[in-house]
Amino acid sequence: MSGRLAVVGLGPGDERYLTPEAAAALADAKALYGYGPYLDRLPARAGQSRHPSDNREEAARAADALRHAAQGESVAVVSGGDPGVFAMAAAICEQIAVGPQAWRALDVMFVPGITAMLAVAARIGAPLGHDFCVLSLSDNLKPWPLIERRLDAAAQAGFAIALYNPVSRARPWQFATALERVRRHLPPTIPVIFGRAVGRPDERIAVTTLENAANEPADMATLVIVGTHETRLIERPGRSPLVYTPRTVPRAMVEAIA
Amino acid sequence: MSGRLAVVGLGPGDERYLTPEAAAALADAKALYGYGPYLDRLPARAGQSRHPSDNREEAARAADALRHAAQGESVAVVSGGDPGVFAMAAAICEQIAVGPQAWRALDVMFVPGITAMLAVAARIGAPLGHDFCVLSLSDNLKPWPLIERRLDAAAQAGFAIALYNPVSRARPWQFATALERVRRHLPPTIPVIFGRAVGRPDERIAVTTLENAANEPADMATLVIVGTHETRLIERPGRSPLVYTPRTVPRAMVEAIA
Repeated sequence: MSGRLAVVGLGPGDERYLTPEAAAALADAKALYGYGPYLDRLPARAGQSRHPSDNREEAARAADALRHAAQGESVAVVSGGDPGVFAMAAAICEQIAVGPQAWRALDVMFVPGITAMLAVAARIGAPLGHDFCVLSLSDNLKPWPLIERRLDAAAQAGFAIALYNPVSRARPWQFATALERVRRHLPPTIPVIFGRAVGRPDERIAVTTLENAANEPADMATLVIVGTHETRLIERPGRSPLVYTPRTVPRAMVEAIA
Repeated sequence: MSGRLAVVGLGPGDERYLTPEAAAALADAKALYGYGPYLDRLPARAGQSRHPSDNREEAARAADALRHAAQGESVAVVSGGDPGVFAMAAAICEQIAVGPQAWRALDVMFVPGITAMLAVAARIGAPLGHDFCVLSLSDNLKPWPLIERRLDAAAQAGFAIALYNPVSRARPWQFATALERVRRHLPPTIPVIFGRAVGRPDERIAVTTLENAANEPADMATLVIVGTHETRLIERPGRSPLVYTPRTVPRAMVEAIA
């Protein structure tokens, strides 16, 4: 028996976002690995062990889970959101690439989930309704100048921008610097959306503008969407505004960025 | 009574990807609107009417669904994948923006789903494990030179690229032209993934290289992922290879694109 490893996306946290495929993978596992707070969201199951680890320990967690699965066990590694977007899927692949040959014989399965940008966008309308870029602001694993290069490219070409990991205790200045960077290319009035903990009791969604965005509270769990020249608000009496990026690009925008 | 409209993401098509939130929204609706083949996937329910429409009729479908909801009814509009990614959420917002004031009083809810790029990526590993761009290749709603501008920006800055709507009968040459465009910036050996109908009986996943990608069959329902300099394959005996983009950017890549 060669063992099984499922890399499971939990979505934003609430059960309403957990797909049947993810629920089945969790139920099948004899051992769960993941960031402690993600594991804490899951109901306890008899005969299922839990192996919580800290944030920023992804490589060690991936290797531990692979080693456990290689003993012939059915193991699940959980990610918030989708495992393929700044989460555990790449960490698992990286470990398989450098690990023992036996890890390549494992039955490895990736189970997609609702990633934060989709959940936040759905709460507010359709800010990602046109072309967009997805960028982690963490410079733990890539140099900061490369992040600035990508922010420039995205803003100049008229992509909306979804930013993961905007702020952490170890990275206090990067988010404000990133906002200044995109302001070189975009008007100060462009809508910026902050979303956190979608579907959970502490959910927080805020809409501001690029010029005011640096004043908005943000942390590792916040997802930020910077709109485009074309992103618009629809005011609604007694309801929060809708924010959307139209599917059609008007001629004026083409001329502005071509 | 003001009426309700849910814009619901079905995911890639198989029930295993349908979130509980989406299932509940479908069950609550008295009328379902959507592209015919998407509606055909859903089980019939007593007392629930169906209003199929053709592809490329998104604006009319959105207006019809809003008009129906404004009669005080509970209506759902379905999208394949996620409604916020090149799908019905933006079309609904566009119609609310120009429609009667009463449409702004509706209880409108967007229900996220597993969009094609996440489902395809999960089938193969973690090709979107680092920064990436998401682009529709359809030039029905934006001019082709803008698409080329965005392909240049994405490839030059080292983003992986997820391409929606690569080919249609009315757009026979665009996909090959787009591949030629990114080849100006990327080596011919870069992995390119084709995915279609994930989770359905006719699922097809293929991995090729940038130089051979134009030979691969593709249609409107195909999702294409173009990797980066760093995207790698892990060969596995008796299993399909894994494809992933590492979380870490090596110094050589930074120098190549900075």
